[in-house]
Amino acid sequence: MAVFKLYGDAQSGNCYKVQLLCSLLHLDYQWQAVNILAGDTRVASFLEKNPNGKIPLLELSDGRTLSESNAIINYLAYGSALLPAEPFALAKVQQWQFFEQYSHEPYIAVARFIAKYLGLPAERRSEYDAKQKGGHKALAVMQQQLQCTPFIAGDNLTTADISLFAYTHVADEGGFSLEHYPAIDAWLDRIKALPDFIPLGS
Amino acid sequence: MAVFKLYGDAQSGNCYKVQLLCSLLHLDYQWQAVNILAGDTRVASFLEKNPNGKIPLLELSDGRTLSESNAIINYLAYGSALLPAEPFALAKVQQWQFFEQYSHEPYIAVARFIAKYLGLPAERRSEYDAKQKGGHKALAVMQQQLQCTPFIAGDNLTTADISLFAYTHVADEGGFSLEHYPAIDAWLDRIKALPDFIPLGS
Repeated sequence: MAVFKLYGDAQSGNCYKVQLLCSLLHLDYQWQAVNILAGDTRVASFLEKNPNGKIPLLELSDGRTLSESNAIINYLAYGSALLPAEPFALAKVQQWQFFEQYSHEPYIAVARFIAKYLGLPAERRSEYDAKQKGGHKALAVMQQQLQCTPFIAGDNLTTADISLFAYTHVADEGGFSLEHYPAIDAWLDRIKALPDFIPLGS
Repeated sequence: MAVFKLYGDAQSGNCYKVQLLCSLLHLDYQWQAVNILAGDTRVASFLEKNPNGKIPLLELSDGRTLSESNAIINYLAYGSALLPAEPFALAKVQQWQFFEQYSHEPYIAVARFIAKYLGLPAERRSEYDAKQKGGHKALAVMQQQLQCTPFIAGDNLTTADISLFAYTHVADEGGFSLEHYPAIDAWLDRIKALPDFIPLGS
């Protein structure tokens, strides 16, 4: 029996983080599809569960809720090999997750959203173009790290890899070619080869 | 003897989070002033320590470095009363910190930066205006939570309060009046009244 419910959209990279984590850790859950473009996250019944009106949202069997994709995957991975217990290693995981939310997602995921879901309309072209510089800066930071270590926070796979994989592996859909980032490409392949890996859109 | 060095700018809210945390927990550290506007974060010697070129940056005595303000304060608060050990409570702290970096800081801190540091130049007026809506949305989410609990993640002060206090208490400098958010105002006062509280710019 599923012990929690996940509200999400199968096309959202932020929701995919949770789906991928659950697959890797064999966690069972009940999926509740939410359509952002149709306004599902702005209705009162959803805003009661998450006043910030965003998915993914985790709901435990006792009714408690948790939002923010990276907080959710760290919670679900607690005690597993994907989340280190040693304080500095744990802090490094969080460092990369805050990097993802502040310096990566607002460029790479938003450029992808404008291109893939909105069809790159003329009135958002300059915003799309402006996203390219920040996105490439984030990719360069990742490339530099992944030249030194096989995973983003060091020698082992952690939730930080899942956080950054979600939008990096579809960065081309936002106009970002990875051809100058060979260490990122090799890292993407390492993650895709994991047992119980599932693709975005599952 | 200081066991770590903190690279920062005393006017930066993100750096202030770490300074305030250290004061509340009586942690001793060596301060290394960094001037962002003068380009100090873009020189090779700094980029070697943080390839993302941002402050605050923590450097341990053995040379290991940690970036991202919220990751730093969680690391320094590990094992203290400011960071819960229980997994769901810990996840709630992180939820609010990711909210801060994605839904709060990019509006409230950036509007403040444009107004206070750049002097609200005409060419950034429309960007400044556009920040107001997102900032008020974030404040409304906080107000709703703080009507229910005395601190942002529940009954106790945590690092999530420090994360959100940093830019909320100077939100007026970004054009955000708090007069319609009485629960936020009361929460700001609770934090300012803490023993060993220090103001921004210390």
